[in-house]
Amino acid sequence: MNENILGIVAGVLTSVSMIPQLVKVIKEKNVEDISWIMILVLISGLSLWVWYGFLKNELPIILSNAFAVLVNIGLFVCYLLFRKS
Amino acid sequence: MNENILGIVAGVLTSVSMIPQLVKVIKEKNVEDISWIMILVLISGLSLWVWYGFLKNELPIILSNAFAVLVNIGLFVCYLLFRKS
Repeated sequence: MNENILGIVAGVLTSVSMIPQLVKVIKEKNVEDISWIMILVLISGLSLWVWYGFLKNELPIILSNAFAVLVNIGLFVCYLLFRKS
Repeated sequence: MNENILGIVAGVLTSVSMIPQLVKVIKEKNVEDISWIMILVLISGLSLWVWYGFLKNELPIILSNAFAVLVNIGLFVCYLLFRKS
């Protein structure tokens, strides 16, 4: 299989699997079970993957991780909005 | 920065961020909030990333996604064990 198509299919699958968590948090406005430290660790890791993708010039890596960064920034914003102070 | 070191750091960060979910499920024996469809979609996507890593011959991609596959197989096993029938 063409490597880029494989990477795009892989990226779409791993990206799609992140959406329900964000939708759930937005719907239920409940972030009790979310660890903000973990979200920040994840955002750092995903951002490094984007950087890695640029260095290796691999579009599937860049796109899927950039998407994941956005989803997790969304989660972090929800965390800040909905946490009980 | 050396690409492989960057990839390994990125892989460690994104891998570490997966552990708390698995620990939480094992501790609380509660899988009510987990969607098995999403776990299977994620395992498929991650497995394709491993395949992609082999095609591109990139060790950081292979290792971090193989680790993530294992964590998510663990989650799926927990789901099967702990779900309310």
